[in-house]
Amino acid sequence: MAELDLEKTVETIARKARNASLQLGVSSTAQRNEALGYLAELIRQKATSLKQANQQDIEYARQASLSESMIDRLILTDDRIEGMAQGVEQVAKLEDPVGAVLESKTRPNGIRIDKVRVPIGVIGIIYESRPNVTVDCAVLCLKSGNSAILRGGKEAFHSNTFLAGLIQEALKKAHISESAVQLIPTADRAALNILLQKDEYVHCIIPRGGEKLIRFVSENTRIPVIKHYLGVCAAYVDKDADLEMASDIVVNAKAQRPSACNAIENLFIHADIAKEFLPKIAQALGSQGVEMRVDGASVAILLRASGAQFEPAVENDLYTEHLDKIITVKVVNSDDEAIQNINRYGSAHSDTIITDSHETAEKFLNGVDSATVYWNASTRFTDGFEFGLGAEIGISTDRLHARGPMGLNELCTYKFKIIGTGQIRP
Amino acid sequence: MAELDLEKTVETIARKARNASLQLGVSSTAQRNEALGYLAELIRQKATSLKQANQQDIEYARQASLSESMIDRLILTDDRIEGMAQGVEQVAKLEDPVGAVLESKTRPNGIRIDKVRVPIGVIGIIYESRPNVTVDCAVLCLKSGNSAILRGGKEAFHSNTFLAGLIQEALKKAHISESAVQLIPTADRAALNILLQKDEYVHCIIPRGGEKLIRFVSENTRIPVIKHYLGVCAAYVDKDADLEMASDIVVNAKAQRPSACNAIENLFIHADIAKEFLPKIAQALGSQGVEMRVDGASVAILLRASGAQFEPAVENDLYTEHLDKIITVKVVNSDDEAIQNINRYGSAHSDTIITDSHETAEKFLNGVDSATVYWNASTRFTDGFEFGLGAEIGISTDRLHARGPMGLNELCTYKFKIIGTGQIRP
Repeated sequence: MAELDLEKTVETIARKARNASLQLGVSSTAQRNEALGYLAELIRQKATSLKQANQQDIEYARQASLSESMIDRLILTDDRIEGMAQGVEQVAKLEDPVGAVLESKTRPNGIRIDKVRVPIGVIGIIYESRPNVTVDCAVLCLKSGNSAILRGGKEAFHSNTFLAGLIQEALKKAHISESAVQLIPTADRAALNILLQKDEYVHCIIPRGGEKLIRFVSENTRIPVIKHYLGVCAAYVDKDADLEMASDIVVNAKAQRPSACNAIENLFIHADIAKEFLPKIAQALGSQGVEMRVDGASVAILLRASGAQFEPAVENDLYTEHLDKIITVKVVNSDDEAIQNINRYGSAHSDTIITDSHETAEKFLNGVDSATVYWNASTRFTDGFEFGLGAEIGISTDRLHARGPMGLNELCTYKFKIIGTGQIRP
Repeated sequence: MAELDLEKTVETIARKARNASLQLGVSSTAQRNEALGYLAELIRQKATSLKQANQQDIEYARQASLSESMIDRLILTDDRIEGMAQGVEQVAKLEDPVGAVLESKTRPNGIRIDKVRVPIGVIGIIYESRPNVTVDCAVLCLKSGNSAILRGGKEAFHSNTFLAGLIQEALKKAHISESAVQLIPTADRAALNILLQKDEYVHCIIPRGGEKLIRFVSENTRIPVIKHYLGVCAAYVDKDADLEMASDIVVNAKAQRPSACNAIENLFIHADIAKEFLPKIAQALGSQGVEMRVDGASVAILLRASGAQFEPAVENDLYTEHLDKIITVKVVNSDDEAIQNINRYGSAHSDTIITDSHETAEKFLNGVDSATVYWNASTRFTDGFEFGLGAEIGISTDRLHARGPMGLNELCTYKFKIIGTGQIRP
């Protein structure tokens, strides 16, 4: 598409999304749920055509020699399609976040001030190759009364286009403007750049994908971005820890799903219990195939333990999100040192202390400046579903608006409704 | 200052502010209030020296031929200095926002999830000429456990430097790091540009001043900005309005303080009552010296009213924040048309409907997409003190994080503290 046409296309999408958001903002819960119901039906009805569209993406992917793991993310099997439809139905069942009165007070002059939850408005979702994100994000935005502008990866272009068509069909059947969910109709990077300039119409951008994509988005827009760059999470095993519990938590937080952002990358161990704990955890992690990269103090201890496998660590390891079966280990001399290390090297995502001391735990929970801080539990619980939100649009390590797992409430803002009987300011 | 030195100076300020924020984040309420108490004392004790510093700014301002209204904003009289000290004492008396448990739930697996209010971290305040903003903003940040980096206007440089010195003296006496409140030590615009790039250390920027300053800041940073560009507020007088009440509210909202951002700029009148209301409001506004700029339908009515003063409006008037005794008037044929006009021309700040109809009021409160929406009350109540917040750091027309008047709670974020007994993810 010529540059001028692209500008016009994206401008039109953004303006229409804004207009649709004003309609959605006053739509009923029933109307939005109706659209979700139609969408679940349509996904099942049109599964064959959806798989055909998906097949085109897979063929291009093979021609482009994408890796098998990339191609696997693209593929829509019958199971995945059914999972998508069920996901839509589950969101329909969730409580409507819109309209809840968060606070209410009557001032001495008699005006009543209600703080009421309302949709944000227009949300841009920038994502990569999984086509199910198209449906997941669209339905969470729709449920919370927001217009969505979707910009998926080029690898899933045909699947995304087909799915966006189904969503618009469902919207139309429910008498909601089709502009409430729109897909940017080109994989051209230039279109993304134009979208990121539309702060007049778009109120929030949520990038979902790798660190590179997220950095690109946040460096190229004035629109508020909700994101997390990295999940460099840590466990700290205190001198007063139950070492059995510590071992179980560390192994779970590292090895249960190493590719998750809430898996730990760093392990800090109090010097007082390092001699006892290090050989123990080396064995437990080793049996899960986890590679340990350890500091000098740990080396000294582990050299005396029989059969422990480890590599020496370099400082950069402490900053690194391996997303793999690798853990960096460091011995610390105090809880203060553990807290300082986590605030310095971590990404303010999820960190845990294992200790029996209430006092040390309190200090850790307050002092570690992360979105979610744990005492005697695995960091793997940082997740919208585990938090009981019923859904997750993402996890934020930002400080403004939303922090930690984000569900439907976090896709909303608030407004003040003020009711008087003629009050004027003296 | 050479560019390289400036970079180093601002980098050091930002890094120190971040370190201080980690200390402040775990400081006690008593310790922060103690610092505020010392500051109020110091402001009174050092009033003479403060006035001397202020005199330097005033002399420069006269040499630079600044307007008398600009110079008036700069001047620190005994009354203003006492007001500043009292303001600090009032903030000390406010409830500490930090540490409040906002939500708490126990999940089926037994982990308890507490959502707890915590400081944002490091806040950059960019403001213009009033030196009292230095103290106001510093104490609100300090009270809420945030580090503040202050960058005031060059006109108030000597006053600001003196006040920042007092604040740091008070911090030191209360054993809080002096880096918790720092002033950028140069009025060089380059220093501001450097600060706006320090997203590694600075978590939020609050610009306070004219639209030009606010636009400059938000266009030149990746750090989240909380702002309002404009206050293009409106009143809508419905066909079912009590016209006496409507006249009182419109006059108050326009004329009580026209320079305030919550004063109205636009007035929409339902056609059914325009013949009766327009001559009435023309007289009421005229007696307050307010100039009416009116649409064609209003002209037709007002020409028949004796003695009404008005000018014809152009469309651009509806977008304009006059901050003066000027009001733009338009007749509309329905409540829908009023809502559409407000969403189109307004700045999503404060808007009011005057009506006796509950149904129309509900429609307006839901349909007008502004931070604060009123029914039968003046828009002039959009203010932290009028809202009972006890303080105000600003008013946001943004949608993320804070919307409407911002007090101490809005200078905070939250974190999740999760307490388990060894839970791991299955």
